[in-house]
Order: sequence, then C-alpha cells, then structure tokens
Amino acid sequence: MQNVDVVVVGAGLAGLSAARMLAMAGRSVLVLEARDRVGGRNHGGFLSNGVPVEMGGQWIGPTQGVVRELIDELGLQTFPSYDEGDNLTVAQGRVVRYADETFGLPADSAMEVGRLWMQLETLAATVTTATPWESENAEDLDRQTLDAWLVANTDDTVARQLFAVLVPALFSAEAPELSLLHFLFYIKSGTSLQTLIATTGGAQETRVVGGTHQISERMAGALGEAVLLGAVVRTIRQDADRVTVEYEGGSVMAQRVIVAVPPTLAGRLRYVPALPALRDGLTQQMPAGSVIKFQVGYDTPFWREEGLSGFVLSLDDGFSPVLDNSPPDGSCGVLVGFLEGAHARRADAMTSEQRRELVVNTLVKYFGPKAADPFDVLEQDWNAEEFTRGCYGGRLGAGAWTNYGAALSAPVDRIHWAGAETAQIWNGYMDGAIRSGRRAADEVLAALVAALH
Amino acid sequence: MQNVDVVVVGAGLAGLSAARMLAMAGRSVLVLEARDRVGGRNHGGFLSNGVPVEMGGQWIGPTQGVVRELIDELGLQTFPSYDEGDNLTVAQGRVVRYADETFGLPADSAMEVGRLWMQLETLAATVTTATPWESENAEDLDRQTLDAWLVANTDDTVARQLFAVLVPALFSAEAPELSLLHFLFYIKSGTSLQTLIATTGGAQETRVVGGTHQISERMAGALGEAVLLGAVVRTIRQDADRVTVEYEGGSVMAQRVIVAVPPTLAGRLRYVPALPALRDGLTQQMPAGSVIKFQVGYDTPFWREEGLSGFVLSLDDGFSPVLDNSPPDGSCGVLVGFLEGAHARRADAMTSEQRRELVVNTLVKYFGPKAADPFDVLEQDWNAEEFTRGCYGGRLGAGAWTNYGAALSAPVDRIHWAGAETAQIWNGYMDGAIRSGRRAADEVLAALVAALH
Repeated sequence: MQNVDVVVVGAGLAGLSAARMLAMAGRSVLVLEARDRVGGRNHGGFLSNGVPVEMGGQWIGPTQGVVRELIDELGLQTFPSYDEGDNLTVAQGRVVRYADETFGLPADSAMEVGRLWMQLETLAATVTTATPWESENAEDLDRQTLDAWLVANTDDTVARQLFAVLVPALFSAEAPELSLLHFLFYIKSGTSLQTLIATTGGAQETRVVGGTHQISERMAGALGEAVLLGAVVRTIRQDADRVTVEYEGGSVMAQRVIVAVPPTLAGRLRYVPALPALRDGLTQQMPAGSVIKFQVGYDTPFWREEGLSGFVLSLDDGFSPVLDNSPPDGSCGVLVGFLEGAHARRADAMTSEQRRELVVNTLVKYFGPKAADPFDVLEQDWNAEEFTRGCYGGRLGAGAWTNYGAALSAPVDRIHWAGAETAQIWNGYMDGAIRSGRRAADEVLAALVAALH
Repeated sequence: MQNVDVVVVGAGLAGLSAARMLAMAGRSVLVLEARDRVGGRNHGGFLSNGVPVEMGGQWIGPTQGVVRELIDELGLQTFPSYDEGDNLTVAQGRVVRYADETFGLPADSAMEVGRLWMQLETLAATVTTATPWESENAEDLDRQTLDAWLVANTDDTVARQLFAVLVPALFSAEAPELSLLHFLFYIKSGTSLQTLIATTGGAQETRVVGGTHQISERMAGALGEAVLLGAVVRTIRQDADRVTVEYEGGSVMAQRVIVAVPPTLAGRLRYVPALPALRDGLTQQMPAGSVIKFQVGYDTPFWREEGLSGFVLSLDDGFSPVLDNSPPDGSCGVLVGFLEGAHARRADAMTSEQRRELVVNTLVKYFGPKAADPFDVLEQDWNAEEFTRGCYGGRLGAGAWTNYGAALSAPVDRIHWAGAETAQIWNGYMDGAIRSGRRAADEVLAALVAALH
C-alpha cells in the first residue's frame, strides 16, 4: 500500500491548490481524482474551428487576488471580457436595448430594483462571512427564504421578475431554495451584489487566454505522478495513527486527508468510523444548482457591428443570461449562455438536438436572423456529471446555516474539508476554491508539525 | 455470483414487505441489509428489568389498515396506549394540567391555534397526495416555508410557540425547514393533523405487545436465508439485460432491484450508469430530521396515581413530547420522550451522562421528585446511526416538491424505489413504509411479467 503524508480527494482547483501548497512545503501528497481529467468544475472545450471555450467556470474579476496571482504564477495570460455597446433585456415580449444601470426596465421598476438592491447590500454588511450562523440576526435572516423576503419587500412584478433572473444567474437555483442568510453571505463573500453581477468592474471582467482549465492542468502538471486519475474514492478510514483512503483499484495510507469535493459528494463517501451527525446532516442538505452551459460559435461576432455587447438578460426566456465569449482576437464570434434552475431541469428531458434548437431560436429572438446559423453549439450539463452533480455550487436553504453551518469546514480528526463551498471569500468561485484548498493545506501543515511535538 | 429475480436493498419495513410479497408470488429474492439486524427505523430495546421498549417507530393508529393487517397476519398482539387522566403543557415556566383540546393554553391562544389548525386542514385538502407537485396552487404552496405561512397568518406568540413544538414532534425539524406544500402533503397523507397528533383516535393510539421490531423480525424469519445481514451495498450496475448489486463482500445479479432506504442514503450508492440528474438532485435535498429518543424506566407508573396521562408538551424545554410507554400490564412505569431538531443537535455535543441528566431533570420538572430515580434510561441517537442518519424521515424544503418531486418514486429502468418517504398514504410512518414496499413489489412483478412477452 502506498504511503504519503497527505491524500487529497478531488483534483479541482481546491484540491490541486492544497496539493501544490503541501508539495511546496516538502510534504508527500497524492491527489485522487475520479475522472480522467483534472479541473472539476473547470473544463475546457473546443469549437469545431479549434477555438477553446470554457465549459465550466470561466471569469475572474476584481478582489479575486488569489486566482489572479496563481494565473500569473503559472504563466497564463488574461484578457478583458468584451463589454462594449448596448446590453439587451427581454421582458413581456419586447427586446430592449440599454446602456445604463436600468437593466432596460421601466423607470419605476428600475428604481424599485435599485432600492431592493441597496437594502440587500445593507443587510449583507451585517453578515459575518467567517461564521454566518453567528451574524447579528442570524436566526431571523436564516429562517426566511430570499423569495419570502422579496415578496415581503416589493409588490413590483417586474422587479420581482428581474430578481427571478438574477438569482439563478448566480446560484442556478430559485429564490425559494435559498435562505436569505445564505444569499447575503454569498454576496458579501464576493464583495457585493454589484460585483457579482457586473462584467466590467465585476466578477465577469476578465478571461484567461486559452481557458481556465489550464490553471488546473498546469498545477497538475507540476505535481506529476502525485495526481492519479480514474481513482474513484469510496471509503475513508481513520484511527488514532493514520487515515486510509480506499478507491476503486487501490488504497493509500496517510497522516491526513483533504476532501476537496462539494459537500453533497463528500457525503456519499463511506467514513469509518462514521462522521458526526452534524457533519453528515450538512451534506444531506447542501444541494447544487441545475445548469446546462452552451457555447455557440459564429463566423463573426456580428452583434458587435450592431453596437451590442452580447449581454442579454431575459425575463421571458429560459436561455439567459447570454454573454459575448469570443476569442481575444475576435477571429470568430462566440456567445455563451445558460439554462439555469427549472429551465435546466426541463431541458434535461429534451434531446440534445431539441436543446440546440431551443438555444438557437432564442438567440435569433435576441440578435436577429444572423444568429440562426452557428457553425457549432457545445453543451455541458453539469447535473448529469456523476462527479460534479450540479453547478455553480452547493447552496443552503432556510434554517441550514444556523443549524448546520458549523460543520461546513470544521475538520473531523484527520479529515479536512476544502472546495469552493467552504470558502469565506468568493464562496462558489474559482478564487474561493483556491483559497479553500490553501486553508485546508494550512490546517494540515499545522497538524503535521503539531504531531511531531 | 448469486442470481435472483429481485434484489432488495434495506431490510426495514419497506424492503421486507417488498421481499415478502415477491417471495409469495414465487419470485426468488435477496434482501441486502447493511446492519447486523433487520427493522431499519424500528429497533427493539430492553430496559434493565427485561421490559421491551421501542427505540424507533412504535405506534399505530386508525386508518393504518395495512400495518394493522400485517401485525395480525404475523400473529402479533396490540394494546391501547395509556391515555387516561390529564395532559401537561409547560409554557413560560408554568406546568399546566388540562383534559380538553386546549393544550393547556390561555383561551385566546387556544382559539388561535384552533383557527390556524383548521386553516391548515382546509389547505391540506387541496393537495394531491399522489402527485403533490400537481396540486392546485402547488407552486404557491411550495415556494413558502411552513414558518413563513405561520408568521404571515398569526401574531399570537404562544400559538406560534405551540406550532414550534408540534412541528418537530412530527418531523424532528423546524418550520423554516419545511415547505408548506410538504407539510400539507404530509398531514393529508396521514389523514389529518388531528390524526397525526392525537393519541386516542390518532397515530399514537395503539402499541404492539413486545415492540414493533417484531414485525420486521417475523417477516425476515419467514424469508430465511433470503435476508443477508452485514451486507453494505455500494454499487448498482444495470444494463439492458440485468442489474448487478455489489456489496462489501460480494455481488448478486438480478432482473430488478428495489432500493428501500431513505432517499438521502439511496443517493450515496454508486449507480452505473449514473442516475438521471433529476433523481440525483432529489437525493441531494431530502434530509432527515434530528432526534434522540429516550426510554426512562421507573418502578411504577407513578404519574397515573396522580391522575396524569404522562403526556407532556413543553414550550420551554428541549425534552418534549413525553408519553406514557409502560408495558401493557403496568408492571413498571416507562416514559418515552424525545430531543428533536435543534435540541437533538445541541445534545449531540453532550456526553451520554449529560443527556441523561438533562432528561431526568426535565422529567422532575414535569412530574415532581418521584421522577428523579429511574431504574434505567435508554437512548437512541438516530442521526449517529450510519445506516439511518436521521429520523423520523426525509423532508422537503421550499421549492423541492415542485422541482424534484416527480423523481421521488419513479423507477429508473431496473431500479425501483421504496421506503416510507415514497408513500402516498401515511408517508413517514410504518404503515406507509409497508405500502411503499408493496407498491414497489407490484411494479417489479408487472415488469417481470412484461419481460416475458
């Protein structure tokens, strides 16, 4: 049986960041990855013309210093997301162009959205991101859903509809499925709602030349044989002296293990001895959202010539939001868009051809007949992926943070938890995933040193 | 490799009922049970004087014809739960005796509870128990939590507190954690809220002489070697021709498999090919409640002499409800009681001795100094049980029924789902568990016949 200092389960950004830090500290490490690739929720695709596109997480933005530095360190290049020209909002059958902060809504509703937005930012400021369950008014914020808060705070139907589009754009889930506390924690962890939503100045500001999957690939490359692909972990056994990780095809002994997969998947491993009830209960109720991501390739970014940014929010259509995702040289046009939440679940029952038709027809509605003939449409259904089972990440519904939050990242003896869901800063994002891996590696390094004394 | 017509995963009431029906129909069957005992959430215990007590599900009541018939068929006897004398309610530091329908509350609050109760029964009547997501107003009922409904419908603090005790008594979870639709579905599936709550005339009316675990034991006895204990199922593989169930220590081939464990545990098995996204998503968000059950033995049922029924609801204390659970001949006194929801989670951090002290001290508060000296205290923490992970059953939070409900019991090719959570009638109860097993067996028998044509 192999023997290392630390086993890491999952070769996404969190797991690889943890392993990288441990290896740099001189520790022997083995990363076990169920898939035949690294990257987790980052995954590279290629349009039929060879242009690389991101089938998973793709953008970085301001205040994400950790992922930014890692990108530099790995020798990758970035470029700004295309964000010139007018945006589009589709509502009540109309396609509206706008270039301000109104989302193209009628003035009354735009004002109302602004008011709610400010109220949410103000409430978010009261949340303690390190321990949301200890926030002032945590009980009150956690017992209500985001939806209940919206219903109680506005009668403006259009404003509610806008949030019904913005919320899935962040969570791939609907407002009733989120506790208000979770929503507030999440936006504060990502600086502000404004930061999360914006392209320029926000979380969609910057892209990585060649795609974000290279971050994982380069980290894995440096780790060499310390990353084992196709290793489906099934059981983690620990006793006073060691931990043994059993995977399909082998097992490995270590001092510590870092489980760097989403909580819902972590809950599916067998632990001997069984985990404490609180930790297990958490994994029973941190479901992932539903999302199918599409990359649609055109010969040219024709919308740019018409003064459009490519950004669309639709209050009417399932395929929303849409953004310009063309390569840096604009040598072809790419639109990226999403079926989220209930729209994704409905589309799961369709054939791939039917989904393609839905997507292209919707783009024609947004951008006119030139959108009718993409040269390629790629899709990625994250919920169908056995070793992800949903994006963008795990969420907590009403009551869960205050009842189970303390178990989210607290180690259980020799087992440490990483992954974007455990991040205090940029929870659910690439930056947060990296931070979480480093935090877990820190815990492990401290424990390994302590064990010598 | 062994080869049978049908494999059943889980030897609780659902799995054994399915296997019994299949065996009676002449099919070969193998039940794989992870534990070294059958019964699942039914489990027998013995006080130090040898008196049997139920550490899990224990009561049956009117409209539960299926469990009642099975008990008769297996030659078991029943007896009425003790329900004479006054009940107690503890609120705002006072212990109140009552013998009516007021729960011992001030008249105003009792009236308000009655009004809310009627409103809930009326709403429940609109739910379609077979397909709750297709109920009239399903979207509206599912987007709100039970808590939000209570907050919106009453300002009476005491009435709210009463519901804050009744809800965990049914779900081992709090009102924010339940969608209103789930609550309404559940009470309609069990006839009515009144039926669920009542002893005489309700779900706590009748007990089984010697304990309910005998139902499973006798079914298992009749199945003989068709029940394999200590078989921890890990993987279910299926193809066009068969299903293979792999457990720790072996594997077995069959035409069909019935997975008769709670959804959250079913989600922890590996399926090859992977399950559809909707089914997987459901298992990510049907968590079990939190409960620790106590059986407290006294030399005599001393409360009876004082004109008390033994029934206590406390709005002040964690240890609630409490009921008389003495043996049929009253040869000793037994009080059964529960730490539920947040109370159970807090108690998880205590030692067994500390929990015992908490329980006994609370009983002294309810029943006076005679309660201070039990001859035995048994406890069962269902959340710490690796192969249950919570009682009384799985619940659905806001949005889950309408988004994921269709996947709760729909077969996935050769895989069928049973368990109390899948029952349309008496969901979450023993009667429902048995019904669910028989329903799954029906599906399988029909499929086996169809396969011949």
